Amino acid sequence: MQRIANLIVLKDNQVLLLKKPRRNWYVAPGGKMEAGESIYNSAIREFKEETNTTPANPHLKGVYTMVTRDEQQVESEWMLFTFVSYDLEGIPFEITKEGILEWHPVEDLAHLPMAEGDRTNLQFAVSGKGVQYGTFVYTTDFELIKEDIQVSYEGEEH
Amino acid sequence: MQRIANLIVLKDNQVLLLKKPRRNWYVAPGGKMEAGESIYNSAIREFKEETNTTPANPHLKGVYTMVTRDEQQVESEWMLFTFVSYDLEGIPFEITKEGILEWHPVEDLAHLPMAEGDRTNLQFAVSGKGVQYGTFVYTTDFELIKEDIQVSYEGEEH
Repeated sequence: MQRIANLIVLKDNQVLLLKKPRRNWYVAPGGKMEAGESIYNSAIREFKEETNTTPANPHLKGVYTMVTRDEQQVESEWMLFTFVSYDLEGIPFEITKEGILEWHPVEDLAHLPMAEGDRTNLQFAVSGKGVQYGTFVYTTDFELIKEDIQVSYEGEEH
Repeated sequence: MQRIANLIVLKDNQVLLLKKPRRNWYVAPGGKMEAGESIYNSAIREFKEETNTTPANPHLKGVYTMVTRDEQQVESEWMLFTFVSYDLEGIPFEITKEGILEWHPVEDLAHLPMAEGDRTNLQFAVSGKGVQYGTFVYTTDFELIKEDIQVSYEGEEH
């Protein structure tokens, strides 16, 4: 099963996003975990590779079960781990083999073109409290069919 | 790839643990995620099935990459998601097909027989702040060869 870790940096009210060439959809920098890697190390490594910068103190904000479905048939299932950082070290690439890196005002997450599940995840990562969990079901063409979300908070004893 | 979710309840300074018959090792109640399930729903479902009780407000405390190695060969790799709750509803089973459920003072986590990685995870879950990540490498006989741990905290901007 594929495991993907990604990371969104929010700094000076701007977020660093990668515009992918295929649909011009925006994503947070990230990619596939390697064998034996922790999700934390994976998110940092992928972010460095894609941006040429080092994120400061990443923190996990979401763990998602991602499903694509072709008619009634499940086509694939994978896990997505989303981190946030509030600073980075270095100057980000502008153009990479993965796409174009752009800073956008955090409010733009509401309307920039992206997978609808990513919008839910990234908006939570930069503004939600606690950790978000959920399942996103997509068509193979990445139209969101269903989302089911849960949230929890540190130290909630009641 | 296997995904396991488990959950430790800490209530009145006691933790609810399952003593497994094979080695008399203690674990936190949990088990395999189902297809399309979120880690949160999975932890609750597994805890209910194994204990007959409902955990209150579970919160994610750890995400681990687990590896077993036979000599130099990786035998298997899976993900472990560990949650904590501070209360539960219902009366736990005492004996189940999985083992014996017992309450123990939380301090006993330091010396009860268990996999050494589980000791690290469960002690963090009940007393650590933030979220813990890491990789545990075991022999196929569950002797810990290597652990590599990271921790992060909510809202750490510097």
